[in-house]
Amino acid sequence: MRTTVQELCELLGGTLAGDGSVTIDDVASPETATSAHLVYTASAAQYRRLESRPGAVILDHETHQACPQTDADAPRILVGDPQATFIQAMLHFRPPAPRQQIGISPHAFVDPSATIGEDCNVHPGAHIGPDVVMGNGCDIHPGVVISAGCHIGENVTIHPNAVLYAGVRVGNRVIIHATAVVGADGFGYRLEQGRFAKIPHTGTVILEDDVEIGAGTTVDRAMIGATVIGEGTKLDNQVMIAHNCRLGKHNAYASQVGFAGSVTTGDYVRCAGQVGVADHAHIGTGSTLGAKAGIRGTVPDGETYHGVPAGPEREQIKLHLTLRKVPEMRSQLGQLVKQMQQLQEQIDALTGCRNDSAAA
Amino acid sequence: MRTTVQELCELLGGTLAGDGSVTIDDVASPETATSAHLVYTASAAQYRRLESRPGAVILDHETHQACPQTDADAPRILVGDPQATFIQAMLHFRPPAPRQQIGISPHAFVDPSATIGEDCNVHPGAHIGPDVVMGNGCDIHPGVVISAGCHIGENVTIHPNAVLYAGVRVGNRVIIHATAVVGADGFGYRLEQGRFAKIPHTGTVILEDDVEIGAGTTVDRAMIGATVIGEGTKLDNQVMIAHNCRLGKHNAYASQVGFAGSVTTGDYVRCAGQVGVADHAHIGTGSTLGAKAGIRGTVPDGETYHGVPAGPEREQIKLHLTLRKVPEMRSQLGQLVKQMQQLQEQIDALTGCRNDSAAA
Amino acid sequence: MRTTVQELCELLGGTLAGDGSVTIDDVASPETATSAHLVYTASAAQYRRLESRPGAVILDHETHQACPQTDADAPRILVGDPQATFIQAMLHFRPPAPRQQIGISPHAFVDPSATIGEDCNVHPGAHIGPDVVMGNGCDIHPGVVISAGCHIGENVTIHPNAVLYAGVRVGNRVIIHATAVVGADGFGYRLEQGRFAKIPHTGTVILEDDVEIGAGTTVDRAMIGATVIGEGTKLDNQVMIAHNCRLGKHNAYASQVGFAGSVTTGDYVRCAGQVGVADHAHIGTGSTLGAKAGIRGTVPDGETYHGVPAGPEREQIKLHLTLRKVPEMRSQLGQLVKQMQQLQEQIDALTGCRNDSAAA
Repeated sequence: MRTTVQELCELLGGTLAGDGSVTIDDVASPETATSAHLVYTASAAQYRRLESRPGAVILDHETHQACPQTDADAPRILVGDPQATFIQAMLHFRPPAPRQQIGISPHAFVDPSATIGEDCNVHPGAHIGPDVVMGNGCDIHPGVVISAGCHIGENVTIHPNAVLYAGVRVGNRVIIHATAVVGADGFGYRLEQGRFAKIPHTGTVILEDDVEIGAGTTVDRAMIGATVIGEGTKLDNQVMIAHNCRLGKHNAYASQVGFAGSVTTGDYVRCAGQVGVADHAHIGTGSTLGAKAGIRGTVPDGETYHGVPAGPEREQIKLHLTLRKVPEMRSQLGQLVKQMQQLQEQIDALTGCRNDSAAA
Repeated sequence: MRTTVQELCELLGGTLAGDGSVTIDDVASPETATSAHLVYTASAAQYRRLESRPGAVILDHETHQACPQTDADAPRILVGDPQATFIQAMLHFRPPAPRQQIGISPHAFVDPSATIGEDCNVHPGAHIGPDVVMGNGCDIHPGVVISAGCHIGENVTIHPNAVLYAGVRVGNRVIIHATAVVGADGFGYRLEQGRFAKIPHTGTVILEDDVEIGAGTTVDRAMIGATVIGEGTKLDNQVMIAHNCRLGKHNAYASQVGFAGSVTTGDYVRCAGQVGVADHAHIGTGSTLGAKAGIRGTVPDGETYHGVPAGPEREQIKLHLTLRKVPEMRSQLGQLVKQMQQLQEQIDALTGCRNDSAAA
Repeated sequence: MRTTVQELCELLGGTLAGDGSVTIDDVASPETATSAHLVYTASAAQYRRLESRPGAVILDHETHQACPQTDADAPRILVGDPQATFIQAMLHFRPPAPRQQIGISPHAFVDPSATIGEDCNVHPGAHIGPDVVMGNGCDIHPGVVISAGCHIGENVTIHPNAVLYAGVRVGNRVIIHATAVVGADGFGYRLEQGRFAKIPHTGTVILEDDVEIGAGTTVDRAMIGATVIGEGTKLDNQVMIAHNCRLGKHNAYASQVGFAGSVTTGDYVRCAGQVGVADHAHIGTGSTLGAKAGIRGTVPDGETYHGVPAGPEREQIKLHLTLRKVPEMRSQLGQLVKQMQQLQEQIDALTGCRNDSAAA
């Protein structure tokens, strides 16, 4: 797919700066690019850090002006949104493989009572249980287990060895990655005469449209109603969402985040990695939880919280900076105690003196 | 399954307060109940927070007295233990599906040398290796892999795609959730001439009776003896128990808890989410580890530990509250330094004065 | 496999101290050994803590001298490296099962376009996709899914239900444990008009020679190039390595460690459990990250970092010890404030006195 920079420029709707006859045959990262590669930089700072010698660079007009082009520099494709344009270029050089059309494999197990929509691929070794209903255009990869009575929307992709327990409801265009588990029992017991008795979990999980669930992520079913992952919400790998949580729309959580039971969130909530949220907490719309934060209670809309226990970013930064001063504060304190003694001695001397003169 | 409140009351062994002719057709959570739903509240405080308008409420006699019933209030079913009674009602409205009787599926792979008890279901795509011995009444779901020589007790349930490595021993009534892995090699290497040499792990894992293992949880095999999960102990999802740990009975750990090697625990230990325990630590009977705690050494019986590194709850709370005062302490310190200078100046003035008068 | 201590001594190349006629039939851990068991202790301290009564003990010459042998003591096998010798003994009493020779099971699914080397075992229920190329001597266990176009080296072991997404490259002698997932999409989105648009990930994952990947661990594919796990690097269970990370050689990470995107490491890096590393961080060669550490930026070569946010060990220890003094500092501060007032009063008295006398 060798393409000249000139041709790329036209394809991508950019403005050429430099030699358009250079030929490019792939995209690359700024670290590893060689002279046949196209890269992008998102800012002038990033452009200046560029160590490799790519064949061409996508950048925005601002960077172009901030970093005047010399003869030694690669030709440039100037655009408004370098990342978006780069993704376009990536799909030009690496067109996605056409979707396979294998239909329902004879090596898959599909219960006779299941209803499979049109244009679905059910790969060898996949398992579709009784009374499952699946919309059109789904890809069910090898080793996937969809248990009895699940409802699957249209154009859903479920990657290998993922598991849906019975009765889970999955919206349209949902992507579930390998070994994710949706709908296992919530973790609830009653201690009866010294033994744990399991609390039955007769609720379910609802994944709304356009949800993406990462590899190894687990979403437990509710006790009565539904654990809900709101429309467009994306969970990275190894995330845990416990029973009865109700996540809003367009949330995005990095890996190894854990939510205890009955947590609710607004829309556009972001969590960095390894955040933990205690049961019944509420995370407001547009708020952000910093890496490893430990949350309890309520995070107001639009706030950024850090720390364990977490608090507003500004407070936490101040607290952290101050805590670093504690060793210094300690030696200051020691000095004050000494000075105080000296002052006391001086005063005692003065007082003694006065008394002397008074006595005199 | 429409049932009048009067009928429910009899069924559940409660005392009716209000109109027994109201008909109910399901249980619901307090947040989402409508007029055909039964809910429960565990306390007067919870009753007062009730926002929905359910058809009937299960509560205890104390709540009934603390919250006098008016005409606007739903009929009440008064009982001693509202949660237990509610679970009974849930099973009335949502009777569990009868256990499937599929026997050993021709689409499962069962090694000829394996011994399967009576009344077992081995679902399509399950794999039973050589010399496995399985008791009566087990449910082995699709994609489960039970490797060579495992011993499985009676009435064990193993959910889809869970994996048992060779030689693992599982007690009676154990439940293993989807994609859990029991018996992988412990993480042990010797650095020999700059390369890691794997330490062979010839031990095993023992899951005692009534253990429950969450989805995605991993329990590694011991180097020589056995990693043991004690009777009745429950592990939530994505928990990690490393080689040679020996957990006591009736422990309960929330999700994403990690135990390093050779940790021992007493009975009735509880861990909140994301706790980490260092190798060779001991957690005493009846103790509780707070969310995200980092444990090293010994936690005495009956203690509650918090923090990283963790300490007794009372100390940790005091420490945390005091740390929050550090910014205030810092400005106090600054002020003291200033005052000290002023005092010194005043004293110097006095001393100078005295010297003057002495000189005079 | 009953063996006298004399015979063992010869087999293991050690020096006998005590009765060589004692017979041993297995190895055991120091906690559970009985009179027919062989144990080892790595130090005199460990030897003194020995509570069980084993039939024989492997120890080094130093321990032998530090703990003089009495008639009551078990016979000893003196060697230079007790752990290494003990592993040899363990393999004598518990020889590893001979590698199975099942070939390509008719119950496995192998795409006709895949190339499988000689002497490979592909177990029932394993799935080998189109265009996969696999070297000689590999063991592919039940339920493993190797997607289209993966390249697998020689003598690779992949445990049950592990998943390789398309195009992943695996070196020689790599071990991948059960339910691990290699090559899922990196977690990257662009927020476009209020909705997350998925950034295509056309890169791959490279596992170099002698890598070991723990159960439930996930390694995501790069956006363009490759996420790389360097030669000889070992990842424990439930570790997460995000897109575009490049790990050096002979790293070892304990369980539940999480690396965000584009992290790089040198060689011989060690991470204790539950460490989190922020995106684009660099961890220098030979450095160690303490349990639960939260890393950002650069960790220099050979350093040990602890804490959140993490810093050099010495600083962190000092900081932690000082923070524990804060309650004490606070009461000291309160006392200083009081003393200061008293001093002021005394000075005021003196000043008043002086003024009086001046006025006089």
